[in-house]
Amino acid sequence: MIIVFRPDAQTAQIDLIKNMMTAKGLIVKEIQGADTHLLGLLGDTFALCPDLLLRYPFIERVMPVSQPYKLAGRDFHPGDTVIECGGQKIGGGHFAIIAGPCSVESEEQMLSIAREVKSLGANFLRGGAFKPRSSPYAFQGLGQAGLNLLKIAREITGLPVVTEIISAEYLDDFDKHVDIIQIGARNMQNYPLLKEVGRLDKPVLLKRGPASTIDELLMAAEYVLIGGAPVILCERGIRTFETATRNTLDLSAVPVIKEKSHLPVIVDPSHGTGQRNLVEPMSLAAVAAGADGLMIEVHNHPEQALCDGGQSVSADQFDRLVYNIRKLREALEGTRN
Amino acid sequence: MIIVFRPDAQTAQIDLIKNMMTAKGLIVKEIQGADTHLLGLLGDTFALCPDLLLRYPFIERVMPVSQPYKLAGRDFHPGDTVIECGGQKIGGGHFAIIAGPCSVESEEQMLSIAREVKSLGANFLRGGAFKPRSSPYAFQGLGQAGLNLLKIAREITGLPVVTEIISAEYLDDFDKHVDIIQIGARNMQNYPLLKEVGRLDKPVLLKRGPASTIDELLMAAEYVLIGGAPVILCERGIRTFETATRNTLDLSAVPVIKEKSHLPVIVDPSHGTGQRNLVEPMSLAAVAAGADGLMIEVHNHPEQALCDGGQSVSADQFDRLVYNIRKLREALEGTRN
Amino acid sequence: MIIVFRPDAQTAQIDLIKNMMTAKGLIVKEIQGADTHLLGLLGDTFALCPDLLLRYPFIERVMPVSQPYKLAGRDFHPGDTVIECGGQKIGGGHFAIIAGPCSVESEEQMLSIAREVKSLGANFLRGGAFKPRSSPYAFQGLGQAGLNLLKIAREITGLPVVTEIISAEYLDDFDKHVDIIQIGARNMQNYPLLKEVGRLDKPVLLKRGPASTIDELLMAAEYVLIGGAPVILCERGIRTFETATRNTLDLSAVPVIKEKSHLPVIVDPSHGTGQRNLVEPMSLAAVAAGADGLMIEVHNHPEQALCDGGQSVSADQFDRLVYNIRKLREALEGTRN
Amino acid sequence: MIIVFRPDAQTAQIDLIKNMMTAKGLIVKEIQGADTHLLGLLGDTFALCPDLLLRYPFIERVMPVSQPYKLAGRDFHPGDTVIECGGQKIGGGHFAIIAGPCSVESEEQMLSIAREVKSLGANFLRGGAFKPRSSPYAFQGLGQAGLNLLKIAREITGLPVVTEIISAEYLDDFDKHVDIIQIGARNMQNYPLLKEVGRLDKPVLLKRGPASTIDELLMAAEYVLIGGAPVILCERGIRTFETATRNTLDLSAVPVIKEKSHLPVIVDPSHGTGQRNLVEPMSLAAVAAGADGLMIEVHNHPEQALCDGGQSVSADQFDRLVYNIRKLREALEGTRN
Repeated sequence: MIIVFRPDAQTAQIDLIKNMMTAKGLIVKEIQGADTHLLGLLGDTFALCPDLLLRYPFIERVMPVSQPYKLAGRDFHPGDTVIECGGQKIGGGHFAIIAGPCSVESEEQMLSIAREVKSLGANFLRGGAFKPRSSPYAFQGLGQAGLNLLKIAREITGLPVVTEIISAEYLDDFDKHVDIIQIGARNMQNYPLLKEVGRLDKPVLLKRGPASTIDELLMAAEYVLIGGAPVILCERGIRTFETATRNTLDLSAVPVIKEKSHLPVIVDPSHGTGQRNLVEPMSLAAVAAGADGLMIEVHNHPEQALCDGGQSVSADQFDRLVYNIRKLREALEGTRN
Repeated sequence: MIIVFRPDAQTAQIDLIKNMMTAKGLIVKEIQGADTHLLGLLGDTFALCPDLLLRYPFIERVMPVSQPYKLAGRDFHPGDTVIECGGQKIGGGHFAIIAGPCSVESEEQMLSIAREVKSLGANFLRGGAFKPRSSPYAFQGLGQAGLNLLKIAREITGLPVVTEIISAEYLDDFDKHVDIIQIGARNMQNYPLLKEVGRLDKPVLLKRGPASTIDELLMAAEYVLIGGAPVILCERGIRTFETATRNTLDLSAVPVIKEKSHLPVIVDPSHGTGQRNLVEPMSLAAVAAGADGLMIEVHNHPEQALCDGGQSVSADQFDRLVYNIRKLREALEGTRN
Repeated sequence: MIIVFRPDAQTAQIDLIKNMMTAKGLIVKEIQGADTHLLGLLGDTFALCPDLLLRYPFIERVMPVSQPYKLAGRDFHPGDTVIECGGQKIGGGHFAIIAGPCSVESEEQMLSIAREVKSLGANFLRGGAFKPRSSPYAFQGLGQAGLNLLKIAREITGLPVVTEIISAEYLDDFDKHVDIIQIGARNMQNYPLLKEVGRLDKPVLLKRGPASTIDELLMAAEYVLIGGAPVILCERGIRTFETATRNTLDLSAVPVIKEKSHLPVIVDPSHGTGQRNLVEPMSLAAVAAGADGLMIEVHNHPEQALCDGGQSVSADQFDRLVYNIRKLREALEGTRN
Repeated sequence: MIIVFRPDAQTAQIDLIKNMMTAKGLIVKEIQGADTHLLGLLGDTFALCPDLLLRYPFIERVMPVSQPYKLAGRDFHPGDTVIECGGQKIGGGHFAIIAGPCSVESEEQMLSIAREVKSLGANFLRGGAFKPRSSPYAFQGLGQAGLNLLKIAREITGLPVVTEIISAEYLDDFDKHVDIIQIGARNMQNYPLLKEVGRLDKPVLLKRGPASTIDELLMAAEYVLIGGAPVILCERGIRTFETATRNTLDLSAVPVIKEKSHLPVIVDPSHGTGQRNLVEPMSLAAVAAGADGLMIEVHNHPEQALCDGGQSVSADQFDRLVYNIRKLREALEGTRN
């Protein structure tokens, strides 16, 4: 960590900070020029709060040098993490195709889509039982009844199930019936919930918040990892000024996260773009960028869907998409490293 | 609501939608030109989900015309809401100065700041007991012990207390000891929590999420208002590309919200800028823009603060700020409408 | 175009607008409900300025329905445009690999990189002679001497040359010595310059501004197309809150533009990410998303480069990239449509 | 400047950089820890290009410590700059009210608005003769004829005139007839134009680009200041995800710029919000935040305006605004420092 003083900082003020840092067991190196005065701190600066230091009016800036995450970072875990779950793997070369409806709406709907996406190549099922909706008047999901339908779909297809938790209230039900617990974008910084799901012995699929930096996503993952659960990260679009797409899918996040972290990274092009005609090109782009999986919304009868219709693809489109992903992945295996 | 069809939409497809809307009891008006075909829907379009319609590939756009919030909107509540709480009022000309430390750290710290800000003119106390922090390794607040110290500070000063809730787990304690329950920016879309606090009979201070639009803030308020609790909205900066300030304080939000909603709106310049030297100019600007109150972080001994030091003002600075706010408010009362 | 009135608009006010629109030869359709009053306008609403209407205080919103660009839009040009230039083609299945140094620095540097990228598979040369730099103290490019070196590089390699113009002052030199004239991101809305280059008989490579929407990019292209010159669009990253990359490369822009416009779209992953290690994954992702080409910065002797070192790849990296692009493009040809 | 090496950087690589920096006459201080290795550079690091260094793959980050602008920065010019022009002053306590129509449309319109805003308290006239418009089909301004009308308005009212230049082509006309030359937001980084206007002996009003940071605005000012012309900075809203306002007016920019720079800063609430009903609250907020002036669009006959109607205020509204600004400024003079 580097502490930059204001040009008019007094010697006594600088000494105060030097002594404080030395007392914390840090090694302090000083750099002083005409109008530059700074301290470099070596040692376990990890627990040092930059905000603490900024409280001093004579300190201008505090610049961290090392990564603020230990468990999520690659520094101490150089190899890719592979997550196993319900007979399927994600990460380290294992590609996940997670597909299903936006919301679980009925037994008939859930089972027919589940059978269809399985037959077309999905290796995980998705479906929302608890839906966080901007409007309190919008459909909020079937709740526990939805979890139950997901459980039936899992039994019939044999595919592991991913679904979103929005409150610790139903933690036991998720623990019993769900294979991968999803934390949605709106809850990425719901730290009490992150801690709770981290304590279960299940993989957590953590979606990036629409205004969260990659570093904040990795810090949120750290909250889960401390509890012991493994984490799959998911890029699903960030909020920008562009209105042609619902969000701006930040595919650079895939290679950036791969460099910083050992955790698997998947991409959700359905929410990331909000438009069904963009799902295929952005899925292929995500594969080419190095993603470990995709999360795709598939519908069967569009005229009955209760939410997010505009971004779900049909079974035919999903069939073609899976075929094209396979072709692309084969080609990528033939590329040079 | 207006439905715009794609230029190549078929008559049968348009009829399908017309019949569906008529069956919902809506009045359908049709507009058709050379390459434009649209339907205007009149009646209670409130419960109509645009996403449902976008699922049809022959529909290009769905444009809502009326406000999506009933309780928060001004349409049915033309007058300003005034919130009473612990002998103090906010809104409709009553100005709130909410002051205190970022975190409750100790009895000595909390009580000395509480006494000081009261004597300098604050009419509400603030202080964080449960702190949502980006890093799991950062100080997370004193928790229930912090609530207890706030209770003591309230007894001694007689000022109502505002503090943040981050999980429904401690709802009873908040109900007993807190006067205004704060929902922080990270939890603005934690809908289960919004519903829970809405059911208590206490005002809720709802902070705008850093990537939330004003409409989303008002929809989040709607979740609370449905439960019965009154809401105070708080602008605290949005996330933009600018890095000179921690967030970009969106003061236009104040008059925009005042036009759309009857709820009181306050501003938090401490978190909104992240820099103590910007707190005063942005506080005065918030007053001039029409805010109903301010939320200000004040510290006593900067060298002992455990978080967010850079944005807290000293007692001297707070003293001057309160004086200047008063002068400005007097001048604004003399302006023409 | 749809005009939405405020709920309290008077009949006389609405009639004023109706008469005005009828007088312009437009067909006016009226929709009126309990608190909704709107007009749908049919006919050549193209020249109608929404701002004109918003000046009336009783008009709440004006919503355009049709595309604001005629020449750039796909409505009247359904097929993909293929641009020919110096024996090379871009668009409609023809892929452009535009490579070269960030800046032209010397004859030795320019010629050695030019020869190298040609031998490795580039089909266009790039190199900056006039450099728009945030700081007036930074290297501003060799200017006309740089254009001259590009001309020599073109003669030696036979590859067409792309370089940026930043002022109409040297228009004649660009006309004589340059094959494709680049308008950089900072000048995307420099309309006088767009008009000038549009009048030359040369393709224009138009980069998206970092805060420009896709619609604004297409409107800027319209300025050039009116003059007669063909346009290649280039996505190069937009400005967002994320700081892990210099810009956020918006790859969704590729399929979005392809749907709206017939013009070729290329991607610049070097400026779009600002990091050399992200150039390959984002190049492959751009290919998979459907881009018609890539613009890649390549350096030879990193220790002598005068600008933008962090994002330039070495010849070895470029070699591998071209190989991998080819493999990926072959695979994409085998995918299903 | 601080150079941070990657953890795996070799001694020989670090030595290479140390020697290079020493050869440039810089003093190099080294800090080395377990997994941290960095160099602090003292001396004239001003001309050192961070990008040059980032080209080395073993360098992870380069962090500038001092301000990158010399002439615009406060370091060497501690006192506020006061700009005199046509008998009026801006800065250092002198407040500018620049008012007039969006576009100059006719002699009758320009002169009647000019007389009106003068009588109501404006001390500068504005009016667009050359209009940069997103659409090539929109009204582009009267051009030189517009400049001529501004000249007449100046003669009649005695008020200095501010108008925007969009190309160096008409530099002589601006030099002759205009008192303050405006560089609009779209041209903030049109460096050749900045250099040209900087060479004239006239104040330049430089608007912040909608995606430009405050530091980039100050760097753009530096381009003008090098030529010798004084600069007035103008905040006019930045581009964010919020759509309730056209732009997000960043009023924090006012005190931030005041801290970094000695140049006067004004605010344009008309373009900054895009809504006439927000002009007054945001004008008062700008005054309270410390702005040195305001730029306000005023119309006379709304039904004849050719552009940007939604944000122009009427003469009555302007009258009230000027009165309220005066009241507020008087109150601010009575506040404590």
